Amino acid sequence: MQEGYPESLERVIRALSKLPGIGPKSAQRLAFYLVKSPSGELEELLQALENMRRKIRFCVRCGFFSEEELCRICQEPSRDSHVLCVVERPQDIFALERAGFRGRYHVLQGVLSPLAGIGPEDIRIPELLQRIREEMVREVILALNPSVDGEATALYLAQRLSAFPVKVTLIARGLPSGGDLEFADEVTLAQALEGRREIRVGPGKGAL
Amino acid sequence: MQEGYPESLERVIRALSKLPGIGPKSAQRLAFYLVKSPSGELEELLQALENMRRKIRFCVRCGFFSEEELCRICQEPSRDSHVLCVVERPQDIFALERAGFRGRYHVLQGVLSPLAGIGPEDIRIPELLQRIREEMVREVILALNPSVDGEATALYLAQRLSAFPVKVTLIARGLPSGGDLEFADEVTLAQALEGRREIRVGPGKGAL
Repeated sequence: MQEGYPESLERVIRALSKLPGIGPKSAQRLAFYLVKSPSGELEELLQALENMRRKIRFCVRCGFFSEEELCRICQEPSRDSHVLCVVERPQDIFALERAGFRGRYHVLQGVLSPLAGIGPEDIRIPELLQRIREEMVREVILALNPSVDGEATALYLAQRLSAFPVKVTLIARGLPSGGDLEFADEVTLAQALEGRREIRVGPGKGAL
Repeated sequence: MQEGYPESLERVIRALSKLPGIGPKSAQRLAFYLVKSPSGELEELLQALENMRRKIRFCVRCGFFSEEELCRICQEPSRDSHVLCVVERPQDIFALERAGFRGRYHVLQGVLSPLAGIGPEDIRIPELLQRIREEMVREVILALNPSVDGEATALYLAQRLSAFPVKVTLIARGLPSGGDLEFADEVTLAQALEGRREIRVGPGKGAL
């Protein structure tokens, strides 16, 4: 990359610049910071990464991050087992938890992508079908990303799941809270129009 | 930080968000990326960091990054030993090398900062004086950052070095190449005016 970096520093810069959102300049700055490591930041980061590598795995049931065989959500008895929310990646679960969802989850670990050669057997679809057979699932909420592959995967799943006695729903697409109609893209706006709901107000409450 | 992160993941997020330029969101994104580690990036980063921690040290003479007692610059016999360039941090040397400087360097590992309690004995000023006594230095170029502390350190060094038979110079302050006069701050512009140089053109070359 640069003439004259000591090899071990160069290697850290290379490894850092492979991470998402870290360009060559940021990688250099980070490496320089870590090498000097004013108050043990290098040691701290190293130990944290090593600890994570050793401890973190995916929950055998739902696929969420876990330090045990079953994740803390699968271990919670108070969860509503009738509602199963299907997501693409484990980190999506944090967002849904923040939004207040209290059912159970299933992580696909990806979406279908014919172009990338990713078919139904390559992501955790067989495990999903197995769970629907074995657990008392009544509704499957598809909370996949609104991308081309995400939508296609949702459609595929809706079709596969039509053979099961479950309701299949898709999380709504529409204007994001705080979003600006003027700057909304046409796909979002078309979906927001399509998903419009009637607002009913009581007679005493005046017109909206 | 977030309810429900497994502890080992949370610890990596905390360690990452202490690094410069990495906010909580970036730290989360990086941690999620590393934990999944599609093609061994976690392993690669870990090994690179460990390797760097083991191998990198500071050159005993100039203070530059090195994997040996003397860095590659101090080991180069072709360098001009008469010119010693003083910098604040080891990474500043890369910039000067790119600019084509081929003398020798001395890293102060900081600048004087009365407010932070950093005095002449806390940075590598004694080592600098020692080198000037022992090596055949004729010119000391002060290439410190144009910050308040950098300027104060340059002044202090100029004063201390006046006792030695060396020429002391300060790298020029002025408009950066590609900079815009309209948007230059007043300090830079005042320094650029003060540092103005006469342009002499031969009689046959026309007026500039």
